[in-house]
Amino acid sequence: MKPISDQIKEKPWLGWAIFFSTIIVVFFLGLLALSIIERRTEAVFAYTPKVEYTQWEPRNEVWGQNFPRQYNRYMQTADTSFASKYNGGAMRDMLAEDPRLVVLWAGYAFSKEYSQGRGHYYAINDIQNILRTGAPMEGQKSPQPSTCWTCKSPDVPRVMQEVGIAEFYKGSWDTRGAEIMNFIGCADCHDAQNMNLRITRPALVEAYDRRGLDINKVSHQDMRSLVCAQCHVEYYFQGEDKYLVFPWDKGFTVEDVEEYYDSYTFKDWTHAISKTPMLKAQHPDFEIFNSGIHAQRGLSCADCHMPYMNEGGQKFTDHKIQSPLNNVANTCQVCHREETPKLIANVYERQDKIKQNRDKLEELLVRAHVEAGKAWELGAKEIEMQAILQDIRHAQWRWDFIAASHGGSFHSPIECSRIISTGIDIAQESRIKLARLLASYGYNKEVPYPDIDTKEKAQKYIGLDMQKLNADKEKFIKEVIPQWKKQAEEREKTYAIKNL
Amino acid sequence: MKPISDQIKEKPWLGWAIFFSTIIVVFFLGLLALSIIERRTEAVFAYTPKVEYTQWEPRNEVWGQNFPRQYNRYMQTADTSFASKYNGGAMRDMLAEDPRLVVLWAGYAFSKEYSQGRGHYYAINDIQNILRTGAPMEGQKSPQPSTCWTCKSPDVPRVMQEVGIAEFYKGSWDTRGAEIMNFIGCADCHDAQNMNLRITRPALVEAYDRRGLDINKVSHQDMRSLVCAQCHVEYYFQGEDKYLVFPWDKGFTVEDVEEYYDSYTFKDWTHAISKTPMLKAQHPDFEIFNSGIHAQRGLSCADCHMPYMNEGGQKFTDHKIQSPLNNVANTCQVCHREETPKLIANVYERQDKIKQNRDKLEELLVRAHVEAGKAWELGAKEIEMQAILQDIRHAQWRWDFIAASHGGSFHSPIECSRIISTGIDIAQESRIKLARLLASYGYNKEVPYPDIDTKEKAQKYIGLDMQKLNADKEKFIKEVIPQWKKQAEEREKTYAIKNL
Repeated sequence: MKPISDQIKEKPWLGWAIFFSTIIVVFFLGLLALSIIERRTEAVFAYTPKVEYTQWEPRNEVWGQNFPRQYNRYMQTADTSFASKYNGGAMRDMLAEDPRLVVLWAGYAFSKEYSQGRGHYYAINDIQNILRTGAPMEGQKSPQPSTCWTCKSPDVPRVMQEVGIAEFYKGSWDTRGAEIMNFIGCADCHDAQNMNLRITRPALVEAYDRRGLDINKVSHQDMRSLVCAQCHVEYYFQGEDKYLVFPWDKGFTVEDVEEYYDSYTFKDWTHAISKTPMLKAQHPDFEIFNSGIHAQRGLSCADCHMPYMNEGGQKFTDHKIQSPLNNVANTCQVCHREETPKLIANVYERQDKIKQNRDKLEELLVRAHVEAGKAWELGAKEIEMQAILQDIRHAQWRWDFIAASHGGSFHSPIECSRIISTGIDIAQESRIKLARLLASYGYNKEVPYPDIDTKEKAQKYIGLDMQKLNADKEKFIKEVIPQWKKQAEEREKTYAIKNL
Repeated sequence: MKPISDQIKEKPWLGWAIFFSTIIVVFFLGLLALSIIERRTEAVFAYTPKVEYTQWEPRNEVWGQNFPRQYNRYMQTADTSFASKYNGGAMRDMLAEDPRLVVLWAGYAFSKEYSQGRGHYYAINDIQNILRTGAPMEGQKSPQPSTCWTCKSPDVPRVMQEVGIAEFYKGSWDTRGAEIMNFIGCADCHDAQNMNLRITRPALVEAYDRRGLDINKVSHQDMRSLVCAQCHVEYYFQGEDKYLVFPWDKGFTVEDVEEYYDSYTFKDWTHAISKTPMLKAQHPDFEIFNSGIHAQRGLSCADCHMPYMNEGGQKFTDHKIQSPLNNVANTCQVCHREETPKLIANVYERQDKIKQNRDKLEELLVRAHVEAGKAWELGAKEIEMQAILQDIRHAQWRWDFIAASHGGSFHSPIECSRIISTGIDIAQESRIKLARLLASYGYNKEVPYPDIDTKEKAQKYIGLDMQKLNADKEKFIKEVIPQWKKQAEEREKTYAIKNL
């Protein structure tokens, strides 16, 4: 082949072709460079703080000025369209859907109202409005302790800084009503200085301490679960002053925690029908998640509930915390190659199989409570009832551990199923003992199942005056909440914010 | 740049360099070509048949002459080292390990002997030696029907061709003792003409037919499971003539099959203690596998139990059928990226969690049988026992469905756990009814758990004369088996084989 210069001499058009091709290529290179520069500029611009605020600033919208993308997505936890479309709606009235729950919680506030949880956005709204916190006014106190606020707001670490941890938990729920006003948000999980993840709730740090672990030494990936584990865990209120404690001293399984509670002879309440010293499980999400395959493979909560997203050239963590099923492409499909409908079907199949036996256990527990009630009625003695009540306590604890946990039957279906199996065995064991005891008191047949096919019937059956509870609550919402809001507004005006 | 010819004129060494480089490249190309030719030759050589035999040739070693690699690997199903190392040994005496089984099967042959299965290599050996087939000699018949041979040998389709299907099943097990001599092998799954996979057992074809499915239209991937499903399924012996039937008419779940059996009021035997009309589950491996995630992702049995392997340049299916845990690199790790010990631990964790509640269910079933026995003893009437026995039947059916299935708690752990949960519920329900019934007969306390902590005690408890059974069997093995072998040898001499 001839040298290119010779060829150009022979065909002059070839030179021009090369010249113009080069111009076009250089033009597009210029465009590319521009795009890169723009994105860099945007990045610098995006992370240039606009305001300065204190470490315990509770208002999400203040943090939002510096982190508009994360704030904007976080505010979308208000969106309940997915739940409405796929899960029968947000704020489902679980007691209406399943009136047996009313009987299982007879004597405990959960029998008054229990609804499907909504997004973090609603944390304050929902705790103010729910019947469980009562109608504290005109000298009446809330039936709940101040500890109940602990997971609801970044005002909590702020007040704890001011008054101390133990002092915060003390007193009834209404004590802090005007103090706690901002829903769960930025300050709960982030350090205001550097936006690092941080643990703001003492109970988690203390539980780690008691297990000889230093929470400051965990990895960033662990922190992406632990900030959630500040609240999404089993906990209880210890002693008169209702100090918040995670019952992990003996381990994380349902049996470990039960052993812990039994060793204290701790009870959450005494059952109104069976007089059982009961335990109430509180969403042991972190514990159950850790027993499942996704945790074993090194995933954190954030990997699926806050996947990475991209916007305007910025990669950041999606702060719209939600079911991964609402965002399969960026969650499941990062690892799993199946189509979205198939993956969703796989999740639902797991949940349905667990639910079948969980529902059965629920029915058995209702029967056990009612049969125990019958035994008391016939004059059974405490010594005769002791082993029976211990069985009922343990069986319902297992049921509740699964029923209360968010997503447990997906996070760890085999463990959930294992727990339900043991619950069924123990519930039935209590009923065998009850059959013998009832026979010994001359009642040798099936105790009729109560007529509780609606929430209203069930609440009436356990003796709740719902009309009064609702009327009081309505008045409280109308009269007290606006006062609390006004006080909070006045206080927040005094917080230091510096425009930069 | 100057033309290459001009450059060579200036630097003569450049020409030599090009010359020798070319020689070296061409030499290695030659080597590569040789290797390709050799491998092709080997392939042609490897798959050139050496002998010709009939479609129902039962002797594996005859097929092995044409397919030495597959035959060689298949013969290694004799290898029990993995089981010995990891699973407590091959031929584990399950009744000694868990004497409760003896009570669960009281009145049924399984209470005499039940051992961990070994490789296909031992199929004939083990069925001849096991106490369950008895000692048919001196005019005595085996307690088992001829149908029991169906899964044991390629002699089965051969004899079925000769005498007909229904005729084959008829009569006692010893009827065909001299006919069935070659252990499970080539002719069971392969067409002798073209080595395609084929179904040789009528029960599978008939079950498909009744469900309106044509087994000839399934894919090759499906066949890679269906050849296994000829035997690794739930089945029963229908009617007087013990016709082999797969009970799939209503579906594949434990409930579907139960409904099928109940609609016939079919029973495998009557329990010796509780007088329950019992069902015995037979390894429903295919049914349970199909409810699990690996089946849902399109895998076949062969994918994990007979993965592809490579030898002498030949890729072929590994015919050493075994636990994938013995070959993680070529099975699990084709899809899963975790280390071998971790993957094995994941499997064992699943199995352990299921086993915990399966064991519990076993204990409850022993109690139920014994309590029912007590009720009969006290004079309970049939009408009083009916619902109780139906519960015991259903509960043990669920236990057995899981206990009998090979690998079920790995293939489909959530389904297995679901089934065990329902079994526990039903077993306990029967015991609640029994507690009331016993109380009505004046026995209002716990029925003592029998002293069955060894196999010997348990077998004595249910009234088995093991000494006689063992002595008879020993005599049978010494006197009858050699005759059967001799007859088989003589017959096999007459089979047509043509050297090619």
